[in-house]
Amino acid sequence: MERQKRYFLSEDEIPRQWYNIQADMVNKPMPPIHPATRQPLKPEDLYPIFAKELCHQELDQEHAWIDIPEPVREMYKYYRSTPLVRAYGLEEALGTPAHIYFKNESVSPVGSHKLNSALAQAFYCKQEGVTNVTTETGAGQWGAALSYAAKVFGIESAVYQVKISYEQKPYRRSIMQTFGAQVTPSPSMSTRAGKDILTKYPNHQGSLGTAISEAIELAMNTPGCKYTLGSVLSHVTLHQTIIGLEAEKQMAMAGEYPDIVIACFGGGSNFGGIAFPFMRLNILEGKTTEFIAAEPASCPKLTRGRFQYDFGDEAGYTPLLPMYTLGHNFRPANIHAGGLRYHGAGVIVSQLIKDGMMRGVDIPQLETFEAGTLFARVEGIIPAPESCHAIAVTIREALKCKETGEKKTILFNLSGHGLIDMTAYDQYLAGNLINYEVTDADVERNLADVDNLQ
Amino acid sequence: MERQKRYFLSEDEIPRQWYNIQADMVNKPMPPIHPATRQPLKPEDLYPIFAKELCHQELDQEHAWIDIPEPVREMYKYYRSTPLVRAYGLEEALGTPAHIYFKNESVSPVGSHKLNSALAQAFYCKQEGVTNVTTETGAGQWGAALSYAAKVFGIESAVYQVKISYEQKPYRRSIMQTFGAQVTPSPSMSTRAGKDILTKYPNHQGSLGTAISEAIELAMNTPGCKYTLGSVLSHVTLHQTIIGLEAEKQMAMAGEYPDIVIACFGGGSNFGGIAFPFMRLNILEGKTTEFIAAEPASCPKLTRGRFQYDFGDEAGYTPLLPMYTLGHNFRPANIHAGGLRYHGAGVIVSQLIKDGMMRGVDIPQLETFEAGTLFARVEGIIPAPESCHAIAVTIREALKCKETGEKKTILFNLSGHGLIDMTAYDQYLAGNLINYEVTDADVERNLADVDNLQ
Repeated sequence: MERQKRYFLSEDEIPRQWYNIQADMVNKPMPPIHPATRQPLKPEDLYPIFAKELCHQELDQEHAWIDIPEPVREMYKYYRSTPLVRAYGLEEALGTPAHIYFKNESVSPVGSHKLNSALAQAFYCKQEGVTNVTTETGAGQWGAALSYAAKVFGIESAVYQVKISYEQKPYRRSIMQTFGAQVTPSPSMSTRAGKDILTKYPNHQGSLGTAISEAIELAMNTPGCKYTLGSVLSHVTLHQTIIGLEAEKQMAMAGEYPDIVIACFGGGSNFGGIAFPFMRLNILEGKTTEFIAAEPASCPKLTRGRFQYDFGDEAGYTPLLPMYTLGHNFRPANIHAGGLRYHGAGVIVSQLIKDGMMRGVDIPQLETFEAGTLFARVEGIIPAPESCHAIAVTIREALKCKETGEKKTILFNLSGHGLIDMTAYDQYLAGNLINYEVTDADVERNLADVDNLQ
Repeated sequence: MERQKRYFLSEDEIPRQWYNIQADMVNKPMPPIHPATRQPLKPEDLYPIFAKELCHQELDQEHAWIDIPEPVREMYKYYRSTPLVRAYGLEEALGTPAHIYFKNESVSPVGSHKLNSALAQAFYCKQEGVTNVTTETGAGQWGAALSYAAKVFGIESAVYQVKISYEQKPYRRSIMQTFGAQVTPSPSMSTRAGKDILTKYPNHQGSLGTAISEAIELAMNTPGCKYTLGSVLSHVTLHQTIIGLEAEKQMAMAGEYPDIVIACFGGGSNFGGIAFPFMRLNILEGKTTEFIAAEPASCPKLTRGRFQYDFGDEAGYTPLLPMYTLGHNFRPANIHAGGLRYHGAGVIVSQLIKDGMMRGVDIPQLETFEAGTLFARVEGIIPAPESCHAIAVTIREALKCKETGEKKTILFNLSGHGLIDMTAYDQYLAGNLINYEVTDADVERNLADVDNLQ
């Protein structure tokens, strides 16, 4: 029997607009607050840091549909539509009556969904006369995407990579350099923020918070230079909705509609990217799809954090954001899913959780690699450690269907491949990986710092 | 202006047969010779080593079209058709009037074209009751493909990986292990061939020749076990013709037909895979497409080797093959394109070169990485070091078109991505890569050993 495995859109079916869920939300996200004035943030407040168009997208609660600029859409065509795949191998391995689909973002040239927003951000920067962009990167997925996108639009890029990643994941650094980026291990002596930390702690291994500070500082002190960010913010999530908008058309080609949509959760752009276009139909057409964000048990902001105003970075340079947070001083354990080691959640998702439109599930590290290894063996793709979280939740839901006999349709986002993360699989296969516990005392202590900000 | 970038086939357009060029060749390949009896090889002579169906495919000079078994075609659908891509970025960077297309085999789950034959070989083994397969791998592309294909069809796999690669490319080893393969560094103490070498040279770093001997020995001494090979042989090339057969349909979708077809050349299966379906139309319909095999200057069997009977392996365990060879004792320099470090060429390609149907071009290592880095920056995909050879020849041809003003259509095969080979790019970007020279004396000395075999 012939069974269709993959669904593609023709190039003229690739969406021409991104979807801005803020316009359709019943309860809008609360405004970010300027830490100095304590006033709601205006787009102009962000001009010194980001391209202007991105500042407006960030706070836009009016327009549900934002045109994708033609040069960005032209670049999307090099890898989009990404395939929607029916995971027959996984279904059979689990013996579930559920139908499992995944959107395969790992086929992007840089290996993850990050390119969807990197191309957009680089384009707007170029359009506004920016000549240099800066960013930070942990594991390196975002840094790789931005390096290539900057090259595409003829902009120079400087990436601050968390020092421990710079040393432990040399392949990602090489990828960025091959695309032509200037990569600096952070903390570095090239910024005041870096110098201050190195003076205090000469052997500091770096953190995302410090790397953000360095990248922002360089952008603010360099004429023609802007900063870019790979997740958390609403404009990044907006660009990622291309994933869900494509998936909606592709699910229709397969003659199905998802009962459950699942994605891993770091800052929220990957999750919102696949979920929001479907959530739109929950809001506007009364559909009842369930949305599950898969977070690491070692960084459980959605399931054990608190909804509060908090800083987006460790150093407290960003606006105060209304979000589910573990506190900006929370230090997640050193799990391999580097992209999920973030203390807070984007403002849109935070409001949606508060309103019961979606929920988080936290997964221990070992379960994620067990899921990822099974997936590799039955579907042939070695998933990124981040994506393994979505697969673990998918497996849990598919096994529930096996128990109840329900034939649910499950869709998850395979955000990236794990080919640069093989040391993590090595450790898993050798039995050397562990789970990390977060105690209630840890959570309370870090949230106490946030209380002072309210 | 909207321009189509990529061409895909629907799942029912994926070819249902492979193409066997032996049936259409004017001069058939000369027969392999049994080294003991000095008689032409019969399929039965190969039964102890390979699955029977593969032995017959190997020597089939009658049937131009061989049915792809349905279970293999079903697995192809997970990644095929691979996209045919118009390389606008490369064209613009070179300022050439040529139209450049590439077939992107790097999107296969294991990152290269190798899976096309691995799935076929694993399927035939399974069908004939084989429970275990063995193979050797150098860089690890073939080993990874076979590991996954074996898992798909429920067969155990044992891979002998050249020891220096096992240690220098740990990610490829991890990929094989994640797919469930047993990976052993070669030489090992698990075979007589391995023991003999380790006794003589305790610090031996391994070679493809030794690894082949170990894998064959294990297959021959283990009931229910067969050996598999990833290139050189005619049945492997047969399976790879799916690449060219798809490309033929996709070029038609683009309204073009190639004037030049280019692929890198190790044993010949990648080259034959994309070239033979088009060469068929040169033979049968008088088309005049030019075919160029890109080989490393440090292993120039096509351009500086001799057409002679020689062994396929260093140890002399295989039949004598009529081929272009540098001599089975030739030791190629340690270039990063591990897949092209082989002393001989498959028998079909060797005959075609003799008959002037195609030609080889040899490229120095530095030129290949210069080409690959440019390609990465303008097309977003970091190519495997092997594929960089095809890109270098493509650039040479496109620049010729720029000089002459000719608007040729060039098609090349992007056999795999280089994400597991980033140390090579690191060395290139740091200025630490070198070219290797092969002297005429080297060539003559090694060919003298072959003279004794005639």
